[in-house]
Amino acid sequence: MSGSVAGPEIERLIQLLARLPGLGPRSARRAALHLIKKREALMAPLTTALQVAIEKIEVCHTCGNIDTQNPCTICTDPRRDPSIIVVVADVADLWALERAHATQGRYHVLGATLSPLDGIGPQDLTIDALVTRAREPQVSEIILALNATVDGQTTAHYITDMLQDADVKVTRLAHGVPVGGELDYLDEGTLSAAMRQRTLF
Amino acid sequence: MSGSVAGPEIERLIQLLARLPGLGPRSARRAALHLIKKREALMAPLTTALQVAIEKIEVCHTCGNIDTQNPCTICTDPRRDPSIIVVVADVADLWALERAHATQGRYHVLGATLSPLDGIGPQDLTIDALVTRAREPQVSEIILALNATVDGQTTAHYITDMLQDADVKVTRLAHGVPVGGELDYLDEGTLSAAMRQRTLF
Repeated sequence: MSGSVAGPEIERLIQLLARLPGLGPRSARRAALHLIKKREALMAPLTTALQVAIEKIEVCHTCGNIDTQNPCTICTDPRRDPSIIVVVADVADLWALERAHATQGRYHVLGATLSPLDGIGPQDLTIDALVTRAREPQVSEIILALNATVDGQTTAHYITDMLQDADVKVTRLAHGVPVGGELDYLDEGTLSAAMRQRTLF
Repeated sequence: MSGSVAGPEIERLIQLLARLPGLGPRSARRAALHLIKKREALMAPLTTALQVAIEKIEVCHTCGNIDTQNPCTICTDPRRDPSIIVVVADVADLWALERAHATQGRYHVLGATLSPLDGIGPQDLTIDALVTRAREPQVSEIILALNATVDGQTTAHYITDMLQDADVKVTRLAHGVPVGGELDYLDEGTLSAAMRQRTLF
């Protein structure tokens, strides 16, 4: 592909857009052109939204959620059940569970799952912080809402071992989650069913 | 879908990303999360690139191309053949032809094709400006590089009628372009072949 079709500024915009998940080089060009054509209606508001996001968005020090306040809206919501911590690998999974209204508990975002092949070990996840939270007296249940993949289940086993000394019930999502599937791709009904039918680990 | 998962600022970012072609609601969420995680490496540079684009990008008064200079790089390039004007519907088509290095001529961007069903008539296209350009003494050939669709061919016929009094040869792309196909989706070899085999209209 020639890099000089439309000047370096437009090429740079296209290259950055192409790094978004779901956009390849061709769709990034279409997106750039769409933005340029909708300068006032889309490009300017998107730029502002990105600036606001850069300035305001923080990682919650308690649970690892992404929000514009710290601790996050969920951690500070008095209607959320403080006795339940739902462990997810990623914020995308937290969002998926929230869209499904699957739990009234609070969350703990690990940041990833254990993956020896990718060099991701326990020290790369927020497991220590989870163990500390699990020992707080008001916490009675840890729900492992992890992908039904090898890495997800390896992580679940590892966390269960780490929590053996904590006085909490450790549960996991029911196998309504298709084996090999990923949380973020599931429909909300399946997610809700899996949350209802969670079993002792 | 609940709008309150992650605060109004993130929801606004997701909604704006979802308006890009190629991104649906789900992939827009993934894109937003990816941006937030890559704040320094991607979100900040993309914001800057968008700001630069908003400030610098202009529509070329001569040909309708989008560039950071006006007249555009192609119109002011002395190596481009001033005797040839390649007529395209959209800047995306101009980019596709440039990627294929299909012509050394200059361009004329119509902005759209005639489409009675969508209420797009001749007054919505830059046909008057094209006729004026075609009458300039150095111009000897108008190449109609329009989609091989009903609307594209209707537009080609209309433009040919408008150019009857101008002293120019009017050609069109060879039917290497698959009938019903759109320029922007074609591979560069097909585009080059179609440019080489252009026929009298």
